[in-house]
Amino acid sequence: MLKGIAASSGVAIAKVYKLQQPELKIEKVQSSSEEEIAKLEKAFEKTIADIEVIKERASGNLSEEELAIFDAHLMMANDPELKGQIEEMIKNDGINAEYATEQVANMMVGMFESMDDAYFKERAADVKDVTFRLQCNLAGAIIPDLTTINEEVIIVAEDLTPSDTAQLNKKYTLGFATAIGGRTSHSAIMARSLEIPAVVGCAAIMEEAKQGDVLVLDAIDGVVILNPTEDQINEFGAKRAKFIEEKEALKILISEKSVTLDGHEVELAGNIGTPKDVEGVLANGGEGVGLYRTEFLYMDSDNFPTEDEQFEAYKTVLEAMGNKKVVIRTLDIGGDKKLSYFTFPEEMNPFLGYRAIRLCLDRTDIFRTQLRALIRASAYGHLCIMFPMIATLKEFRAAKALFNEEKENLIREGVKIGDKIEVGIMVEIPAAAVLADQFAKEADFFSIGTNDLVQYSMAADRMSEKVSYLYQPMNPSLLRLIKMAIDGAHKEGKWCGMCGEMAGDELAAPVLLGLGLDEFSMSASSILRARKMIRSLKKSDMEELANKALASETMEDVIELVKNSLK
Amino acid sequence: MLKGIAASSGVAIAKVYKLQQPELKIEKVQSSSEEEIAKLEKAFEKTIADIEVIKERASGNLSEEELAIFDAHLMMANDPELKGQIEEMIKNDGINAEYATEQVANMMVGMFESMDDAYFKERAADVKDVTFRLQCNLAGAIIPDLTTINEEVIIVAEDLTPSDTAQLNKKYTLGFATAIGGRTSHSAIMARSLEIPAVVGCAAIMEEAKQGDVLVLDAIDGVVILNPTEDQINEFGAKRAKFIEEKEALKILISEKSVTLDGHEVELAGNIGTPKDVEGVLANGGEGVGLYRTEFLYMDSDNFPTEDEQFEAYKTVLEAMGNKKVVIRTLDIGGDKKLSYFTFPEEMNPFLGYRAIRLCLDRTDIFRTQLRALIRASAYGHLCIMFPMIATLKEFRAAKALFNEEKENLIREGVKIGDKIEVGIMVEIPAAAVLADQFAKEADFFSIGTNDLVQYSMAADRMSEKVSYLYQPMNPSLLRLIKMAIDGAHKEGKWCGMCGEMAGDELAAPVLLGLGLDEFSMSASSILRARKMIRSLKKSDMEELANKALASETMEDVIELVKNSLK
Repeated sequence: MLKGIAASSGVAIAKVYKLQQPELKIEKVQSSSEEEIAKLEKAFEKTIADIEVIKERASGNLSEEELAIFDAHLMMANDPELKGQIEEMIKNDGINAEYATEQVANMMVGMFESMDDAYFKERAADVKDVTFRLQCNLAGAIIPDLTTINEEVIIVAEDLTPSDTAQLNKKYTLGFATAIGGRTSHSAIMARSLEIPAVVGCAAIMEEAKQGDVLVLDAIDGVVILNPTEDQINEFGAKRAKFIEEKEALKILISEKSVTLDGHEVELAGNIGTPKDVEGVLANGGEGVGLYRTEFLYMDSDNFPTEDEQFEAYKTVLEAMGNKKVVIRTLDIGGDKKLSYFTFPEEMNPFLGYRAIRLCLDRTDIFRTQLRALIRASAYGHLCIMFPMIATLKEFRAAKALFNEEKENLIREGVKIGDKIEVGIMVEIPAAAVLADQFAKEADFFSIGTNDLVQYSMAADRMSEKVSYLYQPMNPSLLRLIKMAIDGAHKEGKWCGMCGEMAGDELAAPVLLGLGLDEFSMSASSILRARKMIRSLKKSDMEELANKALASETMEDVIELVKNSLK
Repeated sequence: MLKGIAASSGVAIAKVYKLQQPELKIEKVQSSSEEEIAKLEKAFEKTIADIEVIKERASGNLSEEELAIFDAHLMMANDPELKGQIEEMIKNDGINAEYATEQVANMMVGMFESMDDAYFKERAADVKDVTFRLQCNLAGAIIPDLTTINEEVIIVAEDLTPSDTAQLNKKYTLGFATAIGGRTSHSAIMARSLEIPAVVGCAAIMEEAKQGDVLVLDAIDGVVILNPTEDQINEFGAKRAKFIEEKEALKILISEKSVTLDGHEVELAGNIGTPKDVEGVLANGGEGVGLYRTEFLYMDSDNFPTEDEQFEAYKTVLEAMGNKKVVIRTLDIGGDKKLSYFTFPEEMNPFLGYRAIRLCLDRTDIFRTQLRALIRASAYGHLCIMFPMIATLKEFRAAKALFNEEKENLIREGVKIGDKIEVGIMVEIPAAAVLADQFAKEADFFSIGTNDLVQYSMAADRMSEKVSYLYQPMNPSLLRLIKMAIDGAHKEGKWCGMCGEMAGDELAAPVLLGLGLDEFSMSASSILRARKMIRSLKKSDMEELANKALASETMEDVIELVKNSLK
């Protein structure tokens, strides 16, 4: 029995499929440059073709957001710079393509990794992925093809790369266990997105597990059992059945209201990244879209999406949601989200820099195009436009003025537009939460973005390992800021939602209910569980709980308080 | 008449000393490697000697903090890596030392500048400064020696490097005007520190001014007049006399109380970086030290300062201040403040990362040494220990527990310690301001750090040009956070100070007085002007003003409000 980290909930029992990557031995050999360059050319062609095939196969399983990784890989494989450097080294040193590729790859990885920037570190991972594929093709080595799996297995691997996870077929892959990784590693995120159980950070798994072993994967408690006894198979079989049963049982809540025992109704909505994701929101009984992240329209493109391209995407979502509310957030780019076709200023602290509404108010050409697309789409549903990273009322007024200008332009052009567009803001900067009562006079709604609000309020980047302990949405200070936002909105008769991770958290949601939150927006797969919980609580009890939480001293106190009250 | 930016207030009239750096023409020449390496060796020796002389001369004028630049330059000139790379290029390519130096310098500057990090960008400036000196020494070109100036002049230059400003003799340098730079450029900061008038960003100055021209430098309004008329000389002579007179007039306030017209007394204290700075605080009538930044003890050293070294520094300050309060901030390193002998983790957003108390709670060995030195020094005055970057009560408790442990250890060791050590926190993280009422139960005092509090509350790095407009200490949201801190402290009978730039600002101070701030800590040179203002105001009027400011919508509204009320 091995311990690991439960990264995606569920239980599976199946044979081990052990993923072994080819081990390449790269030696320096003097060789004819002409021949080597011809070999390299072929390897590049095959590499590009391979990635295209993987992307194509994966497109059925993955969202646009998740597929973007392959565009990055294709861009790199097609980059004349990479090939040019390898060719030059082959020519200058008269050496073989394998060795030259190794040298150039090491240099590029070293360069990217030395840069103090998460974006470049990701590029280092891309270089590794692409050049490994290139070297395998040069060596004639075969990269295991996960799509050939045709029986039920649990995949065991050192780690799974984006290319690996993209190839997983949900029909046969009952789960996976990896030696490295944590709850927020790429493979963990993918497992949750695919809804297959996964245990990561299970250090000894590659040593202990053999091809074909039977394996119990308990991704509820983060445990892996190799070659289980009959009793264990029965025990975990039952645990699996119970897990699936509970999941099924939630489905009866799809058309039910999100209402407390004492009759207080809230709205449970879904967060989406692309129009395709609407399906999941509706299938899970979402009462609206609480956050449509439009940046993927921009990130998955080679150029700024046109007004028409954007209009089509927004219209698709609004139509699919019928008359349910759809909150579309305007471009939230910058920070760790870059575009291949736009140069951001170099900044020491990109999270405190030129991003989101700041960029849009500076580059009004980009912003106006999006606003026009949104206003045109408003004819097809209940549109709420939301500006991200608003810090001051002056910024909100500037953004709203541009919105009004484009609205008037479109009316003058005779374009049909919706009659109830709401214009609101993300409350994700502490200054906006503190001044919420003033904002509420001019904004139609708020949506609290907890990830950023916590990071800025605590002055801690949760991606930085050494300070991630300060990611404390349940700290009384954060609850107070959330209360300021909700009270500010209510004072002016406006609604206040939340579209951060906290909204779907089982310990946080009761407190948020007590604080008076009107709308909870979360990943589609969390909606039904949240509805079940809401329907089991009394608003008045939660108000009392919230007041105690606000008067607490530490996050630990709040968590204990909530746990005790829910017992 | 040319317009520029007034970077350091005052008026001067004198002859132009035009600073012309030698123009080097570097050509690639094939040469004997042995000879070139010998030449290089000599040039390095002379460069090191030159920098040492400059540092020595400058040490009379500059603080430890300002002198640190020369240590960085010396470290670079002594770095075997730099010399090694140039030597290798001389050998490999059989070229002259000048050209090899140029190539290596360009490469290093390019590398440092490409990094997305202010620290490395400063290193790029260092490389330029040191290698320019090296090339001049190789070419036998003479770098103008500003210390040879022996008559009153106004220096005119394209820009002034740290080496240049460090050589300025206040006796003869009546001011300077530069073509480039802004209010926060290095030369501007140095001018304010030396208290000499300066106009920067005066684009045409190098074209227009000739050696020996007479020049009027009006650094009150940011104007430069070349070859003034008799009338202009009289006019600006009078303006200069008035400026000096007003400055002198403030001196009568040195021993006066900082008390409002209606009898409310506050404390005006000074911020210091080194023990030497205490002199300026006392000379300007400071009633205490509101912030002693201990990081310079660490930054100006090749290794962590020992307990004894620290003890001596703290003791010196405490003794010099008599029984006046001295607030010493524990190590606030990280962010943009690095140490040559300590490796920080690579972080995407260092301002949201591993720094200050976070580092100290992780590396308790470093922290305990400082705490022991502080506690030992407490016997020599009124010590207030302040922890920076406190975000949660749990962190404060952890820091205070370490303090108590070391205090008990020292008592057990029989060391004499003070009987009234206060232990407080910087309020510079929004979460701490919001939870101030809870913190005040356990902390002896607060000191609000406005620079960071504004940056985090607005989620904007003020060093990032594109978002520096969000540095808004006068935004009502910030005033509300400040009020939470002050009210929180007063509720528990504790005092609340401020040691950020805002405390000395002539528009902000009246509002802060109205909000109830107890202690205002600022640069020594601002204390007397602040005292004059405090003595001209009524606390009750300022309370009314503060309430209106808290209810305002934007920073612009607050500024207008204050201006109108002070008319």
